[in-house]
Amino acid sequence: MSPKKPLILVTNDDGITAPGIRALIEVMKELGEVIVVAPDSPQSGMGHAITLNDTLFCDELKLTETDKHKEYSCSGTPADCVKIATQEILHRKPDLCVSGINHGSNSSINVIYSGTMSAAVEAGIEGIPAIGFSLNDYSLHADFEPSKAYIKSITQHVIKNGLPKGVVLNVNIPKLTEAEIKGVKICRQAKARWEEEFDKRTSPQGRDYYWLTGEFINEDHGEDTDEWALAHNYISVVPIQFDLTAHHFIQDLNSWDLND
Amino acid sequence: MSPKKPLILVTNDDGITAPGIRALIEVMKELGEVIVVAPDSPQSGMGHAITLNDTLFCDELKLTETDKHKEYSCSGTPADCVKIATQEILHRKPDLCVSGINHGSNSSINVIYSGTMSAAVEAGIEGIPAIGFSLNDYSLHADFEPSKAYIKSITQHVIKNGLPKGVVLNVNIPKLTEAEIKGVKICRQAKARWEEEFDKRTSPQGRDYYWLTGEFINEDHGEDTDEWALAHNYISVVPIQFDLTAHHFIQDLNSWDLND
Repeated sequence: MSPKKPLILVTNDDGITAPGIRALIEVMKELGEVIVVAPDSPQSGMGHAITLNDTLFCDELKLTETDKHKEYSCSGTPADCVKIATQEILHRKPDLCVSGINHGSNSSINVIYSGTMSAAVEAGIEGIPAIGFSLNDYSLHADFEPSKAYIKSITQHVIKNGLPKGVVLNVNIPKLTEAEIKGVKICRQAKARWEEEFDKRTSPQGRDYYWLTGEFINEDHGEDTDEWALAHNYISVVPIQFDLTAHHFIQDLNSWDLND
Repeated sequence: MSPKKPLILVTNDDGITAPGIRALIEVMKELGEVIVVAPDSPQSGMGHAITLNDTLFCDELKLTETDKHKEYSCSGTPADCVKIATQEILHRKPDLCVSGINHGSNSSINVIYSGTMSAAVEAGIEGIPAIGFSLNDYSLHADFEPSKAYIKSITQHVIKNGLPKGVVLNVNIPKLTEAEIKGVKICRQAKARWEEEFDKRTSPQGRDYYWLTGEFINEDHGEDTDEWALAHNYISVVPIQFDLTAHHFIQDLNSWDLND
């Protein structure tokens, strides 16, 4: 008897109709039993938002006859999708949760704003091994083909080895052909940031409004960073955690004598 | 000549009309020059969301004649408020950013979902010393008086000492009288989580929908955690960072040989 196939929850933040999640579903179907619970509309930049002050809808989609898996479209955020999938649809923990493939980078500081990664982190909090995949190409016509073999291999390693409690993987893929990609590099998150520039406009009614734009600033040139890896044609894998404690600063803080 | 008063940016996630931000503004006016840029509506559970796919409005409020400071109401998230404050309103970095006082706890894993803390983290990314304050009382009628002396003291320490690059403070205050509060404790983030329970209902039109509810599960009984401090009548101060790299797992990951 062959071992039981792992149950894989697939989600994303670009919405259930995005090409990126279609590519991810295709790869995951080669590795296990797939269930899809994803937002009904794009949720980019949602960070780790959850829906506290509104109702959530979650409807099963009608798929073609040849599809063997189930898909659900949810009105909430990526983190909501993971919560509702485990509690209301599966009624148990899946063996793995994958999120993406995001249209656009979630490397370095982008992880903080990322809906894709928030789904992976939410799964991690619930004790489910989880990976977020992003392709450094914002286009709706992005080519996900070169990513597929790498995504399959990284996922197989996670299925085989598991992940430690409190850790999920943030995988970013450069926009290159398969021949150009040099391989996979384990990295730390580069200390980069966005320098905002707001595009100020005036509405036809005379009210000022803004569009958020910005320039990406990376002053961290460490060769062990995800930005370095991506700029040098590698796929970056950063293990990330959700214990945010800055342990290195606790001793100093204690010397402040806040109780004096 | 007395030294120049620090410029303090005040924001929150409960919205500009919430009693908590009023209490925080009052304390900050004793410590520096205050500017308020806060969401025009409640943003609880927004995590580190930013507004990428919509326009932002940001309007100056008309205050009473006795008010010496300025306030702006913004249609975006707490992180948006910090971005727009520094770039479009102040045109420079404030000396400090404080967020809150949140109506409800942001201790342990709640930091991940917290709009209050996302504002502090956003300021931290921009290199501004930042603190998020939360009172463990969800009521609109919460009593913020017992918090004020502690908030003033912690803020004075931060103004005096600064904070290291990449670190902001997460301060949580128990719902107690001033006499009952035992003091301040520097802590690490407890490894706790929410166990979701969805309240499933049916709309008048016959469509199922859900409300997110849940039970808080804390299996981390360390006496150095924020949950322990709060349960034992202390104010918890957790230094948090936004480099999410799980450095301890990098060596293990390298042994996986992902390039084989």
